[in-house]
Amino acid sequence: MWIRNAWYVAAWTHEIEPGRIHARTIIDQPLVLFATSDGGIVALEDRCPHRFAPLSLGRLEGDALRCMYHGLKFAPDGTCIEIPGQKLIPRSACVRRFPLAVVGSWVWIWMGDAAKADPATIPPTLALDDPAYRLQAGQLDYDAHYLLIDDNLLDLSHLSFAHEKTLGMDMPQWADMRPRMSPIDRGLRFERWHTGHHPRGFMKKLGAEVDVWTTYDFVFPGIFLQRTAFFPAGTAAASGSTAPQGEPLFWRIDEQAVTPVSPRTSRYFYAVGTRAQDIDPDKLERLYAVTTTAFHEDKRIIEGQQKLIDLEPGRTMLPTSLDAGPTQFRKLVEAMAR
Amino acid sequence: MWIRNAWYVAAWTHEIEPGRIHARTIIDQPLVLFATSDGGIVALEDRCPHRFAPLSLGRLEGDALRCMYHGLKFAPDGTCIEIPGQKLIPRSACVRRFPLAVVGSWVWIWMGDAAKADPATIPPTLALDDPAYRLQAGQLDYDAHYLLIDDNLLDLSHLSFAHEKTLGMDMPQWADMRPRMSPIDRGLRFERWHTGHHPRGFMKKLGAEVDVWTTYDFVFPGIFLQRTAFFPAGTAAASGSTAPQGEPLFWRIDEQAVTPVSPRTSRYFYAVGTRAQDIDPDKLERLYAVTTTAFHEDKRIIEGQQKLIDLEPGRTMLPTSLDAGPTQFRKLVEAMAR
Amino acid sequence: MWIRNAWYVAAWTHEIEPGRIHARTIIDQPLVLFATSDGGIVALEDRCPHRFAPLSLGRLEGDALRCMYHGLKFAPDGTCIEIPGQKLIPRSACVRRFPLAVVGSWVWIWMGDAAKADPATIPPTLALDDPAYRLQAGQLDYDAHYLLIDDNLLDLSHLSFAHEKTLGMDMPQWADMRPRMSPIDRGLRFERWHTGHHPRGFMKKLGAEVDVWTTYDFVFPGIFLQRTAFFPAGTAAASGSTAPQGEPLFWRIDEQAVTPVSPRTSRYFYAVGTRAQDIDPDKLERLYAVTTTAFHEDKRIIEGQQKLIDLEPGRTMLPTSLDAGPTQFRKLVEAMAR
Repeated sequence: MWIRNAWYVAAWTHEIEPGRIHARTIIDQPLVLFATSDGGIVALEDRCPHRFAPLSLGRLEGDALRCMYHGLKFAPDGTCIEIPGQKLIPRSACVRRFPLAVVGSWVWIWMGDAAKADPATIPPTLALDDPAYRLQAGQLDYDAHYLLIDDNLLDLSHLSFAHEKTLGMDMPQWADMRPRMSPIDRGLRFERWHTGHHPRGFMKKLGAEVDVWTTYDFVFPGIFLQRTAFFPAGTAAASGSTAPQGEPLFWRIDEQAVTPVSPRTSRYFYAVGTRAQDIDPDKLERLYAVTTTAFHEDKRIIEGQQKLIDLEPGRTMLPTSLDAGPTQFRKLVEAMAR
Repeated sequence: MWIRNAWYVAAWTHEIEPGRIHARTIIDQPLVLFATSDGGIVALEDRCPHRFAPLSLGRLEGDALRCMYHGLKFAPDGTCIEIPGQKLIPRSACVRRFPLAVVGSWVWIWMGDAAKADPATIPPTLALDDPAYRLQAGQLDYDAHYLLIDDNLLDLSHLSFAHEKTLGMDMPQWADMRPRMSPIDRGLRFERWHTGHHPRGFMKKLGAEVDVWTTYDFVFPGIFLQRTAFFPAGTAAASGSTAPQGEPLFWRIDEQAVTPVSPRTSRYFYAVGTRAQDIDPDKLERLYAVTTTAFHEDKRIIEGQQKLIDLEPGRTMLPTSLDAGPTQFRKLVEAMAR
Repeated sequence: MWIRNAWYVAAWTHEIEPGRIHARTIIDQPLVLFATSDGGIVALEDRCPHRFAPLSLGRLEGDALRCMYHGLKFAPDGTCIEIPGQKLIPRSACVRRFPLAVVGSWVWIWMGDAAKADPATIPPTLALDDPAYRLQAGQLDYDAHYLLIDDNLLDLSHLSFAHEKTLGMDMPQWADMRPRMSPIDRGLRFERWHTGHHPRGFMKKLGAEVDVWTTYDFVFPGIFLQRTAFFPAGTAAASGSTAPQGEPLFWRIDEQAVTPVSPRTSRYFYAVGTRAQDIDPDKLERLYAVTTTAFHEDKRIIEGQQKLIDLEPGRTMLPTSLDAGPTQFRKLVEAMAR
């Protein structure tokens, strides 16, 4: 049921403190993460092969991890290097190591066949400390299947309703302006113009009316990389339905990742911000606060959805023309599962 | 397993505030209730057909209800009247409306085939604001199957034990004086005399000794309508086993409804009181407090019963001569289920 | 799945207060325990046969127990002696009585065929108030299957790791010094010498170096009776691998019992102490505190183990030479189950 051959976001890089063992669960697989002396990060199965004690209750000894139940010790590659009171160490005495990569500020883990893990397929994301940007990061835990959160991100028409007073406030036409959708590797790309937009608040400085070009890539399992670029009114008409030329007046950046934890729990990582020149730190604070409020609006609805689905699992949803994104992506996930 | 073709009490009428959406669940069916501008109350399925978001997280727009996930809008009859970004509204885009009736102070919902819903079959109950009576209302949530609560109400011999210091105090012979039981529509009627009763407390004014005529109708799914009428000593002997003639000295009124929510949860609605001339408001307050205490006595036992049943579901109960009511009613429920 | 023909520790004798009804669950069987006027203790099924109300919500009437739902009354042998409103009491109207014995300070219950209950097979234990000893008692509830706790007690090599800073502190070689293991009735006996031990703290008075003889019997379902005896250095060499002659310098006593409550919950009873001459009350207090801390160290690991086992029930553990005790005992339990 889980798709194992994929990269999943396990943590923010700043969560992994040296000398500490971090327990995480991804697609029902308990993991320990820890930093090694060479500056790397290691991900091992969180289960001693001996009696299945959690290694996350163990102890780091240099770059090795010792189970603190009966003392088995493992090298960072998962090989057992000590069994107390026993000379011979069988080959089977090891814990699985999972391929890991750091891209941007996320720690990515490959949950499947290590031979197929290619970090080059990880979608590029910004580092939180990139001086060209001002970004703020948060996360949220859901009691819902990850695909319900994906559905939410694949159909932004909900901004006009679920986020009427937060994210949808600035552009009420989300439900009416359908995006262009095109396939990308393991995902979909969405692009659309919002024209005739009247900036509010601190955005007023951009002009009385602007055109807004919104584009995002959505990649399995739930990586959402969005740019919202504000241009002078008329840019849309001049550009047609393709990407506009030139630097925008203002760029809003949204980078999010949905990580399935169990069939009914998921973790949601998000960063929001702009280019460094676009925003003051106190304004960024407000942008982040509004965004976080909006994500709690989603959470409330999606967790409610999950409960209704579980109450009557056989029911069929009503297709509408809003669902092109979710429908297409679920087909892609089904194809990956086969 | 649930009996759908029946009227269930969903709420007190005073719970349904104008402009608010009320979420309720009855026999595993999530519902929204709301008042309409014509003074009526509407009950719809609490599930948007589009993506199964809870409509109880939606918004009332006049008499219409809008789903606040992607904006589908429903008329009070459940018909979809708007799908944002889409002109055509398919016939299947509607939510189920459940027949509803207000009788007395209860909001009743028919959970089955609408064509069979006949409000005339709802048992008559008093309105809490009827000037001829003084009534006080409460409710209680149970972690137990509704039929266990029904069993309790169908065999009042438990008053002598479970309510020894509350409701049973006044008449300790509940277990010994068997009621006459007779079938009524979808239920049973119980009638009995308690003779030689010595009123206590503020009831002393009725005389040193009285006869008490207790009668109640018990109707599916768990409607308990009881009158306890106090008469001068000797009335029982003069009346035989039939209903006494003439106005009683004092009337105690108990009206209760058990509503199944899920296989292991139920809601219990109750009103207790007397005729207006029988009681002062402060005495009513005491009567209500004692009654509420007694209902918590039941709850503790019945929830304990449920746990023991679940621990060993195959066990058979020991029949006694106390069980005529519960046994007869369960047969009736089984017949209704077929 | 449960082994019924066995004695289980249900409580400390001091828990059973006269006039009170105590509810306990052992191997999924709800029980009531209460003291009778002859100074004995009775264990009955905690379930009225009539409607399955908990008898633990009932009332003691002398030595009889009355169900406070409909009033059935039971003699201490479980026979029904009253059904309100009914003359005839059927033979089937009784609750099961479980054989019970007090040995030391534990109340033991036989959960199976009463004809096979022989109190002589209960392993002897010390009473907490035995003047020759100073003992302190505690208990702990686990969210884990009892055999995982048994495994822990059957392989003390974990003392060097799980209890590195508590119980393992004094003798770090637990993992290296394998005990001699021999079969006893329904259990195993473990014996070993630790030589060259340097006493710490208040134990320093025993000398700069001592030999320590540790022996314990482990009996189904999880009775752990350990003596740790300190002897002058050289005693081990003189005694070989057999029990040493003569009185030790100091005796540490550990008596513990694991009682399965449900498939995922267990109760752990323990007493720790020494001979009366070995320790001051304030030192005993410290010994008890360290021991309790250590048992919480176990609990954290074992409950973690249980969760990992439940997440992937099919996985096979890696056998090591540490596992002789647990492996042997699980074979014994399997044989008992057949």
